[in-house]
Amino acid sequence: MSISVGIIGYGNLGRGVELAVNAAPDLDLKAVFTRRDPSSLKILSSEVPVVHVDEAPKWSEELDVVILCGGSATDLPVQTPEYTRYFNVVDSFDTHARIPDHFANVDKAGRENGHVAVISVGWDPGLFSLARIYSNSVLLDGKDYTFWGRGVSQGHSDAIRRIPGVKNAKQYTVPVQAALDAVRSGSNPELSTRDKHERECFVVLEEGADAAKIENTIKTMPNYFADYNTTVHFISEEEFNQNHQGMAHGGFVIRTGKTGANKENNEMIEFQLKLDSNPEFTGSVLAAYARAVARLNTEGKSGCMTAFDIAPAYLSPLSGEELRAHLL
Amino acid sequence: MSISVGIIGYGNLGRGVELAVNAAPDLDLKAVFTRRDPSSLKILSSEVPVVHVDEAPKWSEELDVVILCGGSATDLPVQTPEYTRYFNVVDSFDTHARIPDHFANVDKAGRENGHVAVISVGWDPGLFSLARIYSNSVLLDGKDYTFWGRGVSQGHSDAIRRIPGVKNAKQYTVPVQAALDAVRSGSNPELSTRDKHERECFVVLEEGADAAKIENTIKTMPNYFADYNTTVHFISEEEFNQNHQGMAHGGFVIRTGKTGANKENNEMIEFQLKLDSNPEFTGSVLAAYARAVARLNTEGKSGCMTAFDIAPAYLSPLSGEELRAHLL
Repeated sequence: MSISVGIIGYGNLGRGVELAVNAAPDLDLKAVFTRRDPSSLKILSSEVPVVHVDEAPKWSEELDVVILCGGSATDLPVQTPEYTRYFNVVDSFDTHARIPDHFANVDKAGRENGHVAVISVGWDPGLFSLARIYSNSVLLDGKDYTFWGRGVSQGHSDAIRRIPGVKNAKQYTVPVQAALDAVRSGSNPELSTRDKHERECFVVLEEGADAAKIENTIKTMPNYFADYNTTVHFISEEEFNQNHQGMAHGGFVIRTGKTGANKENNEMIEFQLKLDSNPEFTGSVLAAYARAVARLNTEGKSGCMTAFDIAPAYLSPLSGEELRAHLL
Repeated sequence: MSISVGIIGYGNLGRGVELAVNAAPDLDLKAVFTRRDPSSLKILSSEVPVVHVDEAPKWSEELDVVILCGGSATDLPVQTPEYTRYFNVVDSFDTHARIPDHFANVDKAGRENGHVAVISVGWDPGLFSLARIYSNSVLLDGKDYTFWGRGVSQGHSDAIRRIPGVKNAKQYTVPVQAALDAVRSGSNPELSTRDKHERECFVVLEEGADAAKIENTIKTMPNYFADYNTTVHFISEEEFNQNHQGMAHGGFVIRTGKTGANKENNEMIEFQLKLDSNPEFTGSVLAAYARAVARLNTEGKSGCMTAFDIAPAYLSPLSGEELRAHLL
């Protein structure tokens, strides 16, 4: 059985989802919806129609699941409940503090309209959340550590670009090796913000800008940089364009815990991602959950779920027998 | 709600399960069943009754779930279908080739008697299986690598002990660092048996035994050692007793895959365990799945499942709201 998929929103993530859907044997991309003029949007799959997003509800009978590829700040809080009225959906909502509200809104739309929605899917939240729930459930007595990077933080890059005199900037979040080593030793260290991550900035200046002043502005910026060891590299636009266009990312979730009658034994569970393309990998996770959502709805389920609520077998194109034979 | 738990079988694993159940706020150990004379068995929880296993069926109303701690070779193929008639059960069956038969037998007993059974839970199969299914579902185009160790292989230690002139022996399976590095580089290496693991043996000789001959016997032993780089250390009984009683183990599951229009991007998912106590950690996994099994049965489910069929939220003592707030 082929699952008919739509994509709403076609930035880096939408393109990553498109690649993942096209690579899946059982997923069939039927339409890409955009807020832009559809005729202006060139997508990878030339045979797939590009449709204005206002037309999306008319596709409700055609699509088994729609993958929402908007941003968490303003798009998804509106789009996910809205499109759950018409479709089974998957989103990558990642504004942690607003998840309870988002869950409630989407759950209501899903239950009222008989659709399944899975929210907050990707790698964090998503696969990292799975690493946390499994390791916490097994090692009840323990401590969690999450490290991000090495990878680009869009928010921190934007913050630098807003400084007068800055022409362009990329900020890499870098986990501190000594902190990772301390965690893995089982010593359960208490780690400050500064201990865990460093921030490395590559900045292209406008003509005549004051480098020393800008470096100081970056390093003392509250919330973004002041609490971290920050390195600033001033580079040419040419070097920037050549070496800092990548979308690599990754990180680590580690839980260390104790077992034994006297808590004498250390146990460590570590999950690591090392990604050349953050949006393509995230798109691959969304595609796997799209498969799950379509199947769950076929079974009569409705309402909002997260990765915590979905048995792993739903994510795989393989049958139960195949899974037990090859992956168990 | 407290979940009433029984344990059948009290070796290293049974003791590990006992510790895990006692450490869980919502699990309540009600009885330990043994084939031995119950009065001869001393368990850690002095207030918990030790009961002969023949009496177990009489406890079917008292226990929400029973954790089976026998061996995969001869115990579990009989015990799991048998006790699934009376209880919801969890086992750690790990004889890979026999899983389809075991699943079918247990599934039949579960469906006929309205009980849930989860088989093949632990770390491999178990958490490693989960790492495989999630990473395979996300990276459809990729390659899996599993490394075990550093840790004791009971089977290989036994094989050495059967050699005439050997008084005692422990064999450690050791992943080869160069192979791990090659996998992590994303080069998708083809690795032979010899490339992936080394075998390190610590042997105590009987008086007058021929060390050179025994070393040769070990290193050329078909299936067990001939295909590996094997190191043999002859040590005193005193050193053996002092340094080789531990039950540490662990390993790595790594999937590397490609994304991108031209498969130009490498993505790596790695899951790692580093365990001081293999049986205590395995017991902790079984206890988490016992919680899941009891809950699933309360919801009216029956039949056989594996870790693939169970949503992660069932493993945690936390509520859905708590999970979304703290672990998502």
